[in-house]
Amino acid sequence: MTGKRGAPAPIYGRVALIGIGLIGSSMARAIRRGKLARHVACWTRSAATRDKARGLKICDSVHDRIVDAVGDADLVVLCAPIGANAELAAAMAPALKPGATVSDVGSVKQAVVRDVGPHVPEGVHFVPGHPVAGTEHSGPESGFAELFERRWCILTPPPGTDRDAVERLTRFWQAMGSRVETMDPAHHDRVLAITSHLPHLIAYTIVGTVTDLEDHLRREAVEDGRLVERNEVIKFSAGGFRDFTRIAASDPVMWRDVFLNNREAVLEMLGRFSEDLAALQRAIRWGEGEKLESWFIRTRDIRRGIVEAGQAGTFKATEPEKG
Amino acid sequence: MTGKRGAPAPIYGRVALIGIGLIGSSMARAIRRGKLARHVACWTRSAATRDKARGLKICDSVHDRIVDAVGDADLVVLCAPIGANAELAAAMAPALKPGATVSDVGSVKQAVVRDVGPHVPEGVHFVPGHPVAGTEHSGPESGFAELFERRWCILTPPPGTDRDAVERLTRFWQAMGSRVETMDPAHHDRVLAITSHLPHLIAYTIVGTVTDLEDHLRREAVEDGRLVERNEVIKFSAGGFRDFTRIAASDPVMWRDVFLNNREAVLEMLGRFSEDLAALQRAIRWGEGEKLESWFIRTRDIRRGIVEAGQAGTFKATEPEKG
Repeated sequence: MTGKRGAPAPIYGRVALIGIGLIGSSMARAIRRGKLARHVACWTRSAATRDKARGLKICDSVHDRIVDAVGDADLVVLCAPIGANAELAAAMAPALKPGATVSDVGSVKQAVVRDVGPHVPEGVHFVPGHPVAGTEHSGPESGFAELFERRWCILTPPPGTDRDAVERLTRFWQAMGSRVETMDPAHHDRVLAITSHLPHLIAYTIVGTVTDLEDHLRREAVEDGRLVERNEVIKFSAGGFRDFTRIAASDPVMWRDVFLNNREAVLEMLGRFSEDLAALQRAIRWGEGEKLESWFIRTRDIRRGIVEAGQAGTFKATEPEKG
Repeated sequence: MTGKRGAPAPIYGRVALIGIGLIGSSMARAIRRGKLARHVACWTRSAATRDKARGLKICDSVHDRIVDAVGDADLVVLCAPIGANAELAAAMAPALKPGATVSDVGSVKQAVVRDVGPHVPEGVHFVPGHPVAGTEHSGPESGFAELFERRWCILTPPPGTDRDAVERLTRFWQAMGSRVETMDPAHHDRVLAITSHLPHLIAYTIVGTVTDLEDHLRREAVEDGRLVERNEVIKFSAGGFRDFTRIAASDPVMWRDVFLNNREAVLEMLGRFSEDLAALQRAIRWGEGEKLESWFIRTRDIRRGIVEAGQAGTFKATEPEKG
């Protein structure tokens, strides 16, 4: 399928992005780079963010009313924190074009089916999606066209969804550089609870623990009779802590909504983690070196698997290493 | 202070490295690059590792007997897992030269003072040290001369230590690119427990939890009637998990010894972390969105502090990102 002069035809005519943060603005850039749509429209709640988006010139049109953004769109992608989905879906429903596809980029999929599904009119396709990609930065200025390259995008179409609509959205994500996989929303939520949601929760926890402790360490040090800088914990973060701080700098509202909307799976994974942590804690207290060592040897293999699977590396570093 | 033809004079005549893994072999390379010693000798327990070190040609001499390595050395640096320190210190003590300095690179300092201190003969200086730098790789082939650049090295000399010996070792680490700080061993162990030891323990825990769960998720998927690849967790690791796997691939014996030898501080920090995790768990269970959001907002600031302090970035990536 090619357009005039041999260039590939756009996959969609008009794409509407509802929300223009890290993910939405990266999509806008990737769509434009690949000429994947004839027109990229966007709407977002905050007038200040709309002004930012206008200034960045990454969309063809930025709308003050959500119905104007989605009107005549062939693909509408919800890119807002998932807690806002129900309200946004209800607001845009009257303006959706028959034959259009509604999708999203949320990190939880059962909640999206629950919140958005009932608002999708007859004749409009509904294909929830989740690009497994991100950085610790947020806002329209933080996006970049390469964000999705070599990353997975998981689609969770309800049973009976139009096959052409799924195939078209698959080609769309592939054209942005992603590998696409289709799965059941419940399975998605369990896999992501352990690969993403629990790691984020743990990183948020320890960074908070450390922040509190900093004051405590400082007081102690003064009692020792010497002056210690406030940022001693920051100073020595290269020993491992800094890897957690990057994850824990991710968007607070987005992550609040993830935990509230994938509660069961996150609590289950957290329970497993806490049991294992208690076992290692006990091994440390009782000096059980062999138990610790055999656990640590086992964890090496999974890293090797990740390196081999081509998922190694870290969040895209958008800031240079300074020093 | 310059040698002939204006080149800086070596800081030490002969340096003996006891252990030649990631840290020892990086020191050997950095010493040679900077011409910081006239001779680098090394000993390590395993004959196979000694052969590797010989093959890499990163030392001037590799010895089968520890006394031959330390004889006539001006600086002896213990670079083995800290659980081996007492035995190694006893074995090398008879061969130490008066006026020499004994140091180490261990991640725990009170245990080094306890295990090595009693074996250091009269007339030999004892200046424990800890370069806060590393990667998840181990063995002599994994070292590189730049490992210590812009990283902190913490020295914990006992009260009354010869000032010239401390000053000389400080210059040595600075010449390898480090920033040097001196502190009390107990304070070091508490600061590192939170900035390094606890993060490693948590990463080891979650990677183990996930490994167990992989089988479970696979069984479930088969029950759903579809085939799922064994490495589904690995596949979607870009969502956060992979950052933990890198840390959890660190040397198992080294880390076993760290936890066994900094037990009190690690257990204390772990207690604080567990309390905070329980509080967030409760907030998720009860749907307390505001509590979650305010916690997540707070953790952003510390990341900004780390970026400003020039300690951002990740472990040196010695493997390219594939995909």
